Amino acid sequence: MSGNTTSATVLGLGAMGSALAGALLGTGRPVTVWNRSADKTKPLVARGAVAAESAAEAVAASELVLACLLDDASVREVLGTASLAGKTVVNLTNGTPRQARELAEWVSEQGGKFLDGGIMAVPPMIGQPGAFVFYSGPKDLFDTHRAAFDAFGGSNYVGEDPGLAALHDLALLSGMYGQFIGILQAYALIRSEGLSAVEFAPLLSGWLTAMGAFAEHAAKEIDSGDYTQGVVSNLGMQAAAFDNLPAAAADQGVSSELLAPLHQLLLRRAADGHGAENLTSVIELLKK
Amino acid sequence: MSGNTTSATVLGLGAMGSALAGALLGTGRPVTVWNRSADKTKPLVARGAVAAESAAEAVAASELVLACLLDDASVREVLGTASLAGKTVVNLTNGTPRQARELAEWVSEQGGKFLDGGIMAVPPMIGQPGAFVFYSGPKDLFDTHRAAFDAFGGSNYVGEDPGLAALHDLALLSGMYGQFIGILQAYALIRSEGLSAVEFAPLLSGWLTAMGAFAEHAAKEIDSGDYTQGVVSNLGMQAAAFDNLPAAAADQGVSSELLAPLHQLLLRRAADGHGAENLTSVIELLKK
Repeated sequence: MSGNTTSATVLGLGAMGSALAGALLGTGRPVTVWNRSADKTKPLVARGAVAAESAAEAVAASELVLACLLDDASVREVLGTASLAGKTVVNLTNGTPRQARELAEWVSEQGGKFLDGGIMAVPPMIGQPGAFVFYSGPKDLFDTHRAAFDAFGGSNYVGEDPGLAALHDLALLSGMYGQFIGILQAYALIRSEGLSAVEFAPLLSGWLTAMGAFAEHAAKEIDSGDYTQGVVSNLGMQAAAFDNLPAAAADQGVSSELLAPLHQLLLRRAADGHGAENLTSVIELLKK
Repeated sequence: MSGNTTSATVLGLGAMGSALAGALLGTGRPVTVWNRSADKTKPLVARGAVAAESAAEAVAASELVLACLLDDASVREVLGTASLAGKTVVNLTNGTPRQARELAEWVSEQGGKFLDGGIMAVPPMIGQPGAFVFYSGPKDLFDTHRAAFDAFGGSNYVGEDPGLAALHDLALLSGMYGQFIGILQAYALIRSEGLSAVEFAPLLSGWLTAMGAFAEHAAKEIDSGDYTQGVVSNLGMQAAAFDNLPAAAADQGVSSELLAPLHQLLLRRAADGHGAENLTSVIELLKK
């Protein structure tokens, strides 16, 4: 089978679905598209895509069916109108690991094959350097369709469990949102004195790059469960010094709510007798 | 005046004070040290420092007096026993901008001069590449003593307002703690499936480096107050998609408390009619 000639169907033409369909058209393969409001198909049809009248017709047109819809409920609703027997459904809709696992079962019950994907890019990045997509599900299915997937960016297969793509996706998003929390809090403090965030930005970026080494150190501690090696500034000291952050923020008229839960974890972990350990140790309190 | 021969006094010989005194000894200048429990002076005396019998005697020994004590109250208590007339007090104790401003006034009332400092390093890093210290207060005072300061690492003067060193220090610490929040949450999700944090670390680090570009984009928006330019994934979309994070965490037996306040800010800002803006716009809700 040639990767260039395998036809593909894309269900859902929001900004992301349209970008995916566009990338597939760029590989020269036949592409069928469907969207609830049909006007979204026009730019893709102008580039050579075939617009299907219904989701069922779109699914019937290709063995490889990619879904990029609003949410898990939309995926169930749209796929529920089609015959999935013999199809490979690749779900690129945002969702949770549990939703992906349940969807995999549901597709399998109808005779279809299933991969889940987690897209690590915004639509304009699709097909550009830096974009990548996590995939999980049967490895042979991933290998079969990899040529199509590579049109979107890097293709990162993370395991047979269909929930793993969403898990990796949400783990990276969590990392990003934490980084955003820190950056926003830093700028809120700087701006409280009318200083320029733009002038402060290189200092902040340089500092975050240096402190990013925590990701590597923490990983070793977390895998081993041993938080007592190479302790320099232990979590008890950090829990105590942390008081300056809400105090200074309050003086400056800035909320410290974004960092408050970490402060509470540090205090709880210190109170539990782990004050002499590395800060990483608070991850134990995230396990429910 | 030669930078090599200006004598200096260090008050407080915890891990950080001892590292500072050691770095000053390395420049060849006379160094007087004092600590509440005198045994901490021994390693420094062995390297050539003079141990004073009291804080008052230590302050009397040098024009340049560096304080690195437990907290602001300790600084007041220790300096309160000494005559500060004609002295330059450099406070390197962790504290808030307000504490630094009030301490500057208090020292001035006693005929002393004052600089505040914020150390961006752990003790083993003092004098090593990567370490730097923020200073604020009179610029001429900073210039006069810069040769001594440069023994600690990079010397970064941030303004006449004595509160600005602590403000910059706490802004960078806030940035770092946000980054830690994201890294810990990411690993908690990955570990919930028994996957290796060490294997995931390079992906996470690469992703955080790429997403670190937010610091530069956000700074421009924050300085301008315009959050409507170049919107790709607006905050309303992110507020809605954010629901997957606590849902997935709950399914995986992981707490999502560290990210909950950001989620709330996104929802509040979207409800306030700013859903079409960039995420950066939530910083407006941090102003009290």
